[in-house]
Amino acid sequence: MSTRIVLLGATGSVGSAVVDVIVRHPEHFRVEAIVSGGSDVRALAAVAQRTGARFAAVADPARGAALKSALADAGLNIESGAGESAVNAAVDHDSDLVVAAIAGTAGLRATHRAIRPGRRIALANKETLVCAGEAFMRGAREAGVDILPLDSEHNALWQAMGAARPEDVEELVLTASGGPFLSWTAEAIAAATPEQALKHPNYSMGAKITIDSASMMNKGLEVIEAHHLFGIDRARLRVLVHPQQAVHGLVGFRDGSVVAGLAAPDMRIPAAHCLGLPGRLHTTLPRLDLAAFGRLDFIHADTARFPALALAFEALEAGGGMPTILNAANEIAVGAFLARRIGFGRIAGLVSEACEALSDRAGKAPASIPEALALDDEARGWARARLARCSAVA
Amino acid sequence: MSTRIVLLGATGSVGSAVVDVIVRHPEHFRVEAIVSGGSDVRALAAVAQRTGARFAAVADPARGAALKSALADAGLNIESGAGESAVNAAVDHDSDLVVAAIAGTAGLRATHRAIRPGRRIALANKETLVCAGEAFMRGAREAGVDILPLDSEHNALWQAMGAARPEDVEELVLTASGGPFLSWTAEAIAAATPEQALKHPNYSMGAKITIDSASMMNKGLEVIEAHHLFGIDRARLRVLVHPQQAVHGLVGFRDGSVVAGLAAPDMRIPAAHCLGLPGRLHTTLPRLDLAAFGRLDFIHADTARFPALALAFEALEAGGGMPTILNAANEIAVGAFLARRIGFGRIAGLVSEACEALSDRAGKAPASIPEALALDDEARGWARARLARCSAVA
Repeated sequence: MSTRIVLLGATGSVGSAVVDVIVRHPEHFRVEAIVSGGSDVRALAAVAQRTGARFAAVADPARGAALKSALADAGLNIESGAGESAVNAAVDHDSDLVVAAIAGTAGLRATHRAIRPGRRIALANKETLVCAGEAFMRGAREAGVDILPLDSEHNALWQAMGAARPEDVEELVLTASGGPFLSWTAEAIAAATPEQALKHPNYSMGAKITIDSASMMNKGLEVIEAHHLFGIDRARLRVLVHPQQAVHGLVGFRDGSVVAGLAAPDMRIPAAHCLGLPGRLHTTLPRLDLAAFGRLDFIHADTARFPALALAFEALEAGGGMPTILNAANEIAVGAFLARRIGFGRIAGLVSEACEALSDRAGKAPASIPEALALDDEARGWARARLARCSAVA
Repeated sequence: MSTRIVLLGATGSVGSAVVDVIVRHPEHFRVEAIVSGGSDVRALAAVAQRTGARFAAVADPARGAALKSALADAGLNIESGAGESAVNAAVDHDSDLVVAAIAGTAGLRATHRAIRPGRRIALANKETLVCAGEAFMRGAREAGVDILPLDSEHNALWQAMGAARPEDVEELVLTASGGPFLSWTAEAIAAATPEQALKHPNYSMGAKITIDSASMMNKGLEVIEAHHLFGIDRARLRVLVHPQQAVHGLVGFRDGSVVAGLAAPDMRIPAAHCLGLPGRLHTTLPRLDLAAFGRLDFIHADTARFPALALAFEALEAGGGMPTILNAANEIAVGAFLARRIGFGRIAGLVSEACEALSDRAGKAPASIPEALALDDEARGWARARLARCSAVA
C-alpha cells in the first residue's frame, strides 16, 4: 500500500530532496497535494509533473492564474489554487504523511494545521519548533501525531536515540560545519560581505539559512528544535564543530556509551529515512565513505567569535517566548545584512538588543500559533524600528 | 530488585571490568557465583571479597585447596570448589544474567551450559561464536535466551543496530586500532618479536588477544562473531582501521543512513551497558571527548600486510567448520610465537596451511559443542604436528 503524501514546500531545497526520493520509489508513494511557500509556479508545475500530484497550491495569492497556466503548459490537468485557502485545502487532503518544509514563519500555520490523528508529520520547518515549540509539540502529542525530524542533524540524532528514554540521555551533541568563517578572526567575520557569508562549504541551501550557518545561529536554532523534539533540557545540549559533516549528531548516554548518526552530506538521505518508515527504503544515494574522508575533525564551538550561538543557548535557557523573539529579530537582521544595510557583525548585536528590549514579553511560552505569530510580529516590528532609528542616526 | 549474576572469568580483563561496574552499583546486583578460568586463586578470592559472591570456583582442578585457603585468608567463609564440576555448579546457580568471559575454548563449555530459559548471557567469549556459533545461537534462540554482546566492538554495533531488521542493514563495519604494526612494512611485521607485538596502543589485555590484535586476526574473529550475533552475511561485513578507537562500529542502512557506536576505550562502558539493561546505569566512567581527540582517522584495512584478516574472512565465507579450524590453528600458532618457536610472519602461514589441509573436515558447521571441540582438537593436533615437523627439519 502506498503512503499518501502532502508536500508543503515542494520547491525548496528540502522539498526537492523529498521529491527526488519520491520519484525514485514511485511504487511506495502517492502524492496527494503539493504546495509552494513562495511564488515560483514553473518549479511547482515541474514538481507536479514529476510526482503525479493531484493538487497544487501556491502561497502567493496573486499567482493563481500563473500556476494554472504553468500546469497547462506542462500538460497537466489537475486542480490548483493560490493563497491561504488553497494552502489549507492542500493540508486538508487525506494523507498519511505531511512533509512540512515551507521555510520561515510562513510555514508555521500550515504545519500546525497538519496535526490530525492518524498522520505523521516529517518536519523541516525550523520556526514551528523555535517560535511555537511548546504549543506545537503539545498539539501533536494530544493528537497522537508522530513528528519525524527531517533535517540532517535532527534525523541523525533521532536515529541515534533509537528507543532511548530521555532520562538515560546525558547529552545531545549537534555538529556544525563551522561555516565559511570557521578559521576567521572576529574582526574579519564582523566585516564579512554577503558574498562571503553565502559560501557554505558543504550544502547548497537558501540564502537565509546559509547566512545563519555562517553566524552559527542556524545551529543555535537547531539546538532549540532538538530541545522540543527530544525533550532534552538546555544543560544537556551541546554543539561541536565538525567541518566534514560526516557525523551529524551524537547521543551520549549516562552509562558512558555514545551513539552517533552519520550520513553523506545529502538531504535526500534523511528524507529517505522519514519516507521509508517503519521500514527502510533501498536507495542508491551517495554512501558515507569514512576512508575517503581519511580524517574527521572535532573542535569546540567558539561562542566568542560566533555570538549568535551563545544568544540561542541563552534564549533557550530563558525559555518562554524568548526563542520566538530571537528568531524574529534574526530574520530581520539577516534580511538587512543581505540588503547590505548592516554588517555581518551587527546581526547578533541586533538580536541581542531585541531579546533584551522585549524580555518582559518573554515571560511565558506562546500558548498557541496565533500567540506565537503575534510575538513574532512584535519582535520583527521592534527590530525593524531599531534598524530604522540607527539608519536615521547614521 | 537486584540482578543475580554468575560471573565466568572473574579475574580476566573483561571480568575485572564487570567487577568494577558491579561494585560501583552494589544496590543493583547480587553476585551468586564467580569462576576463574585460570588458576589465580588469590585474585579470585579478592573478587569474592569485593563482590560479596556466594560461591567461588577455579577451573584448575588442582587448586581447590589453595582457593579455600585464599578465601580463608581473605576472611571469607563461602562455598568453593575446583575443576569442571565446580565450574558447572557455579553456572547452575540461579541467576538472571551470566557473564561469559572465560577466554579461549576453555570458556566454551561453560558458556553453552549457561543457556537456560529466563536468563540473559553477556558474552565476551570469542570462541563460543567462532568455534560453535551456529550451535550456540540456535540453542540460545530455542531457549529464548538473549545474548548481550559484551566486548566493545559488538556492544557498539548492537547499540547502533537498535531495533533494526537485519534486512535493512547494508553493511556492518567493525573498526580496528591497527595495532602496533599499523605503519610497519610487511617485512618488518614478519620479523616482529613478542615484545613488539605485545605493545597494544590502547588496551591492556591478555597476551593471546594482544598478539591477535597485532596480526589483526582478532578483528577477523570479531567479524565472525558479528556474523552470528547479528545475522549479517560475510558480504555485508567490513573492517576499517581507526587508530583512535573512538568509533567502535558502524551500521550502514540501505537508505544511506549510518549509525555508529562510540565510547572512550574502556571495557567498563560496554559492561555497564549490558549490566544496566533494560535501563542504563548512571556511571562516572571516562567520557568520550571528541574535541580532545581533535581528529579521528579512518584507513582501509590492508589484508596484504595483515593476511590473518583475509584468512578470517575466507573462513567465514567457506563456512561450516572452517572458522573452528582457523581459530584452533591460530591459538597454536600464537602460542608458538610467544614461545619464540616461530616468527610473527609464520602465524598466518600456519593458519592458512591448517585451513587448507583440513578443508575436507569443514564441510558442515559443528552441530553441537562436543562436535566443535572435537574439530578444535583435531585442528590443534594438526597444527602442533606441523610445527613439530618444521622444527625437526630446521
